[in-house]
Amino acid sequence: MSAEPEGSSPEPFRPFERLASERIYDSRWCGLRKDWIRLHDGHEQDYHVFEVDDAVVVVPVYENGDIALLWQYRYVHGKSHWEVPAGRIAPGEAPEAAAARELAEEAGCVARELVRLPGFYPINGISPHYAHAFVALGCTPNDGARPERSEQILVQRCAAHTVRERLRRGEIADGFTALALLYYFAGAHARP
Amino acid sequence: MSAEPEGSSPEPFRPFERLASERIYDSRWCGLRKDWIRLHDGHEQDYHVFEVDDAVVVVPVYENGDIALLWQYRYVHGKSHWEVPAGRIAPGEAPEAAAARELAEEAGCVARELVRLPGFYPINGISPHYAHAFVALGCTPNDGARPERSEQILVQRCAAHTVRERLRRGEIADGFTALALLYYFAGAHARP
Repeated sequence: MSAEPEGSSPEPFRPFERLASERIYDSRWCGLRKDWIRLHDGHEQDYHVFEVDDAVVVVPVYENGDIALLWQYRYVHGKSHWEVPAGRIAPGEAPEAAAARELAEEAGCVARELVRLPGFYPINGISPHYAHAFVALGCTPNDGARPERSEQILVQRCAAHTVRERLRRGEIADGFTALALLYYFAGAHARP
Repeated sequence: MSAEPEGSSPEPFRPFERLASERIYDSRWCGLRKDWIRLHDGHEQDYHVFEVDDAVVVVPVYENGDIALLWQYRYVHGKSHWEVPAGRIAPGEAPEAAAARELAEEAGCVARELVRLPGFYPINGISPHYAHAFVALGCTPNDGARPERSEQILVQRCAAHTVRERLRRGEIADGFTALALLYYFAGAHARP
């Protein structure tokens, strides 16, 4: 048990030393490397690190509080399920710009205002991949969603209580989506 | 906009056809492959899939409602931050057994009862990796945490309101941890 007083955070641990790094794979979509590291007891071991561009996720909220959910197909597990707009940040793109772009492309919406939710590391045992989260307030339809060729998406406008009920029943299986929605419902977005 | 009545889910989309698959990397920690797939418009493209064993995450709750948080170092981003116990499921291990094991090893706790929270796909654009989430009710200290050699962990017992406040302030940067805690606070665990 830590001796730290409750509510404060201890000092950061001392990082492990990287002795060497082997490139396993490089592509425009992802990279994989194997580092050789030294622990503080002198033991040495390898550590695989998966590399992928950082991402955004955005909760689209209409003026009356309704939320746009996307019924979306994901190739990796073969299922269709509920999500909110999300995607990778393009090189040189600001997170806010990426969120506005995904909102337009996937939900067919433009927002009056983008407000930050807490961001997160989705898989920090494996990758430094980071997700910036937003809520898009005052959404209105633009000229229509333009999903990418490999995306299959249906947009459904839902009352907030419907979305809360889906969360409570465990029907939101996408981690990015569930976390951004729960932060939004918990009031974690700082209003300017 | 979907014509589905609100509250119901549309039919699943038709999966893309996998035409071929190339093994890029195999190890006991992770794998990487490149599939060649055919979209419904006939277009063909590649799709990288990262493979890693499924995981568990578990919120340790003491009888009085206090929560055990772990101040933990993560090599991939080099930072120390707050987490709850989590880890990969060993081959042949049941998710409940993995949750109890991580609870004992990382938090030094044994639970009266493990209750399911909604599970999630942490990165479903990249990997079918799935996380089973639990809350461990009625936790009591066992004979001490036994972190793995590469883990640096301090356990802090916190009042629930302290944990809620850390979430609200965006101080819980680990996605697994934030999602499991928010589900627990939202009452998403089904009591038997």
